[in-house]
Amino acid sequence: MKLIRFEENGIIKPGIINEQGQRLDVSAFGEDYNERFFETNGIERVKTWLASYHCPVVSNSLRLDACVARPSKLICIGLNYAKHAAESGMAIPKEPIVFFKATSAICGPNDEVIIPKNSVKTDWEVELAVVIGKKASYVDAANAMDYIAGYCTHNDYSEREFQLERGGQWVKGKSADTFAPLGPFLATTDEISDPHNLRLWLKVNGETLQDSNTNDLIFNLPYLIEHLSQFMTLLPGDVISTGTPAGVGLGFNPPRYLKPGDVVELGIEGLGEQRQRAVAYT
Amino acid sequence: MKLIRFEENGIIKPGIINEQGQRLDVSAFGEDYNERFFETNGIERVKTWLASYHCPVVSNSLRLDACVARPSKLICIGLNYAKHAAESGMAIPKEPIVFFKATSAICGPNDEVIIPKNSVKTDWEVELAVVIGKKASYVDAANAMDYIAGYCTHNDYSEREFQLERGGQWVKGKSADTFAPLGPFLATTDEISDPHNLRLWLKVNGETLQDSNTNDLIFNLPYLIEHLSQFMTLLPGDVISTGTPAGVGLGFNPPRYLKPGDVVELGIEGLGEQRQRAVAYT
Repeated sequence: MKLIRFEENGIIKPGIINEQGQRLDVSAFGEDYNERFFETNGIERVKTWLASYHCPVVSNSLRLDACVARPSKLICIGLNYAKHAAESGMAIPKEPIVFFKATSAICGPNDEVIIPKNSVKTDWEVELAVVIGKKASYVDAANAMDYIAGYCTHNDYSEREFQLERGGQWVKGKSADTFAPLGPFLATTDEISDPHNLRLWLKVNGETLQDSNTNDLIFNLPYLIEHLSQFMTLLPGDVISTGTPAGVGLGFNPPRYLKPGDVVELGIEGLGEQRQRAVAYT
Repeated sequence: MKLIRFEENGIIKPGIINEQGQRLDVSAFGEDYNERFFETNGIERVKTWLASYHCPVVSNSLRLDACVARPSKLICIGLNYAKHAAESGMAIPKEPIVFFKATSAICGPNDEVIIPKNSVKTDWEVELAVVIGKKASYVDAANAMDYIAGYCTHNDYSEREFQLERGGQWVKGKSADTFAPLGPFLATTDEISDPHNLRLWLKVNGETLQDSNTNDLIFNLPYLIEHLSQFMTLLPGDVISTGTPAGVGLGFNPPRYLKPGDVVELGIEGLGEQRQRAVAYT
């Protein structure tokens, strides 16, 4: 199943994309795709409900919002592809580097990305994101895949000066509004036969700059869930973004950063595509 | 006004502490102290409502939960007292060091603190926390105090090995369950005449280890709100914890860390006291 959230008359509504590629309005189910939804087996419940309820088709022209409601945590993994660590001038980590993005950065997959005021180093990062399906604390890698509700595409926008030159922790460069487009849809686990073998790519103004595969992840999903759940409790609906491959702006010589009018397109095999136009903060 | 949240029959309810020091049940107001509450001028609304509604008194023996509902962000400032930077072996920062704690770490002010599995360096940090009252983006220091809804005490528990020896970002050592007791109450701004002149202290097993004053903050509240709001949008109900003074376990020679059975007591002038007993994870 592919879960979406779309905007109609200013209201964010839950929906799905059916097998014919149509968007259906699932508002009548009466729940958003939030912590409570995932915690109470919402994916199975909505699937059962859909079998007996005729949902209205909605226009593909409506704006998509993030495919899940605002989670308690948006957890990111740094330097989880070897070539990206190298291009960033950093060592391959011995264990996962973990940081948070502000959840207020989350937006729809095709929203404009706002270059923050005073930013000169706004950069892109296509990433496979995982949505947690049930509360996870001290989980073993062997069971970790059971805690995943689904997968989606995430562009982990990063302001490199704010991240690396403004005081020691990365969060400052990761948390601006519109810096976390999620979607277009959340693919439930049955949709993705092997999350460790998905091509992911990103283009700027039509030029392919990132093109890799999740089989290059240094720390795979079971490892990450085990690791993270030693340090904090993962709640249903929480999002883990697994890191970006080589090809970010920081890695070029000279570096390349976004300017207003640039168009960023990205996608992951089986998880749809995003498109963001960069605009200046006004 | 002093806002509390207490547990009765397994349900978390909003309340206040009145001028006689009694706890009143404010459930009939029908709102939790969450983003929507602060966003919609909840403090003024509940004050008006209280004038004409007779709230039941509840027992002081009921467990207090965190004084605000789970925020979108729990933002912390590192090394914001000069002596604490020195005892941590770190330089006084040129601009605020910012990190997030997982909001799943938030708990009541007198809950047991759970020493995480495999932890050998669980440490304490008494801090003045600020709760944001309205959406703040690119705020000027001159107006920043208008964005504060109130103040509370926070113990920013920190696992120093997880924080400093496990992969580069601090979040791993800051996010365990029970690592963020908030309360006992949120004091609205009218209760605190000068937040930059409050004594704050912490004892372990009766011995005073932290004893300082918020007049020693390197970066004051207007500066912090201006600074943070350049990098992210602060939402109503978000919590900013302003850093801890000298006297944490890490700063002793040899370092001192918590073991099961230790009792941590702390408080801030005008913001009440907390008490946590340390227990092992089971």
